[in-house]
Amino acid sequence: MTQRGEFQIIEQFFTHAPFGAWTSQGPGDDCALIDIGGRRIAVTCDMAALGTHFLPDADPEDVGYKALAVNLSDLAAAGAVPRAFFLSIGLPRRDDGWLADFSRGMMALAQSTGCALLGGDTTRTPEVADGRHSPAVISITAMGDLPEGKGLTRAGAKPGDDVWVSGTVGDAYAALRCRQGHWDAMPDALPQLYARMDRPVPRLALGQALLDVATAAADVSDGLLADLGHILDRSGVSAEIDFDLVPRSTALRSMTPLRQREAALSGGDDYELVFTAPAELADRVRAIGVATNTLVTRIGRIEKRTSTALVVRSGEGLLPITAGFDHFAAEEA
Amino acid sequence: MTQRGEFQIIEQFFTHAPFGAWTSQGPGDDCALIDIGGRRIAVTCDMAALGTHFLPDADPEDVGYKALAVNLSDLAAAGAVPRAFFLSIGLPRRDDGWLADFSRGMMALAQSTGCALLGGDTTRTPEVADGRHSPAVISITAMGDLPEGKGLTRAGAKPGDDVWVSGTVGDAYAALRCRQGHWDAMPDALPQLYARMDRPVPRLALGQALLDVATAAADVSDGLLADLGHILDRSGVSAEIDFDLVPRSTALRSMTPLRQREAALSGGDDYELVFTAPAELADRVRAIGVATNTLVTRIGRIEKRTSTALVVRSGEGLLPITAGFDHFAAEEA
Repeated sequence: MTQRGEFQIIEQFFTHAPFGAWTSQGPGDDCALIDIGGRRIAVTCDMAALGTHFLPDADPEDVGYKALAVNLSDLAAAGAVPRAFFLSIGLPRRDDGWLADFSRGMMALAQSTGCALLGGDTTRTPEVADGRHSPAVISITAMGDLPEGKGLTRAGAKPGDDVWVSGTVGDAYAALRCRQGHWDAMPDALPQLYARMDRPVPRLALGQALLDVATAAADVSDGLLADLGHILDRSGVSAEIDFDLVPRSTALRSMTPLRQREAALSGGDDYELVFTAPAELADRVRAIGVATNTLVTRIGRIEKRTSTALVVRSGEGLLPITAGFDHFAAEEA
Repeated sequence: MTQRGEFQIIEQFFTHAPFGAWTSQGPGDDCALIDIGGRRIAVTCDMAALGTHFLPDADPEDVGYKALAVNLSDLAAAGAVPRAFFLSIGLPRRDDGWLADFSRGMMALAQSTGCALLGGDTTRTPEVADGRHSPAVISITAMGDLPEGKGLTRAGAKPGDDVWVSGTVGDAYAALRCRQGHWDAMPDALPQLYARMDRPVPRLALGQALLDVATAAADVSDGLLADLGHILDRSGVSAEIDFDLVPRSTALRSMTPLRQREAALSGGDDYELVFTAPAELADRVRAIGVATNTLVTRIGRIEKRTSTALVVRSGEGLLPITAGFDHFAAEEA
């Protein structure tokens, strides 16, 4: 939710002291956790634009799938069970073929995750210049159930906790770079990479199973270091992670070391979960990985907060982290 | 919600058989009414674009106010108490002055109605041509409380019910036509007209008070006939209304009869409530009007469904309603 997106506006301009009968834990998490008279629900919203979040010529079925998937990923990071979503679409013109494909991709994911479309709005995006209209804009608000009083947030990581990540990271970013023609991969590896970019799998079962185990969680949308950084900031702790432990696919491992680092540490869009859990529960986390059919890998340890929030080791050395988390090593390779 | 907007896409491409643990009454109302384990909530979403729903140079404080107000109006039409909203903004570039004004207008209304901003997302709208970006797009999902098992919808109007409307209708449309230079009004009347367009007042207290009285309700966003038409279609009834009873402001009454008709019957954007109630409860409706400080006017009667869904009388004659409800008499004057 709020942390994603190109510039952080909500916090600066729209943060207010709590008021009203429904309150949440405050901004800075993937979802708002709202207590409604004995029930707790999780709510998230994301806006995506063709040309910003999707390539202008992206397959509409993939666009429909992914627009919902990124919202479900926010619910997964909270440990919530998806229940309903609301869809607003701004379109330059009615295009029934595009809409049918978009809907097919979105509704198949909705059905398979039990997340019903309960409302929506459509609008025509305005003409911008010379009869040209703005591209499609998609806004989704997704809602889910949580057990009373529960729900994962980015706050709660404690010194001594392990840092874990699900699946492999960096594939979606590598796919984007290949698609843009900047990087290349073995031809056999490309379909797998592109699937990671176009069809991210929200880690719903994992997030729900971690409700009583993880101390903090976020989905990897901005990049592993950026999203772990959000956990560190919100929890008031530091971390040391070992790059050599960061799970990378065979396709990514076939690339240069610099590209592997850029993709796995700074590339976003993977929609894996990064989470923390007490060290003594490591076996339980591994068992949850098995039970939910999800690769889970311990990549580091939470430390007391110091001036250096995050240290990344590799072999005997330290990897440089400059300019915050978000643009680590970008464009080096 | 779904009925607003230039083309009705949600129903055609996204309607599905109910599934999942949360269900609603189905599409076609201002809000989805969702039962969550003994609680009922109302949810609505609306997307607006500068250049479509707002003039490109609209005052950002007004834009912020109205973007939230139209969602609160949907909650009002369901009789719900506003509790929370989620905001997604797509912007061509960061403009702190615009954002500060936009936020001021929006958050003042949020505070005064107890509707807390509990989350959001921001994104950059993409470049369209020659460095030109799409205009701002605003998407809001608003949520409110309803008593268990209650909530007004567009279905439920019965033959013999009275048709009522709150406030006066046509002012917002007349304001738009004046602002565009197509119509003119007495200079003294203009500020009042413009306020109706820029600062619509969601009829929250009225909607809530009507929960046990009204049989159907909708807000007047598309125009009185169009929104009454939605009630008639969803309820399976017809109606006869008397144009001479339709409440019009002094400013509107100073215009030609044709313009009065176009604005009051077909002009949208007033965000008044049009609703039906049993004839024997007419005094109770009037008392609710007084109690909620809201003008309420009886304008007609619900009839059994016939091939003519809607008849509009004026004096001894009938006003022509051609081409459906939405474009009645447009551009005649």
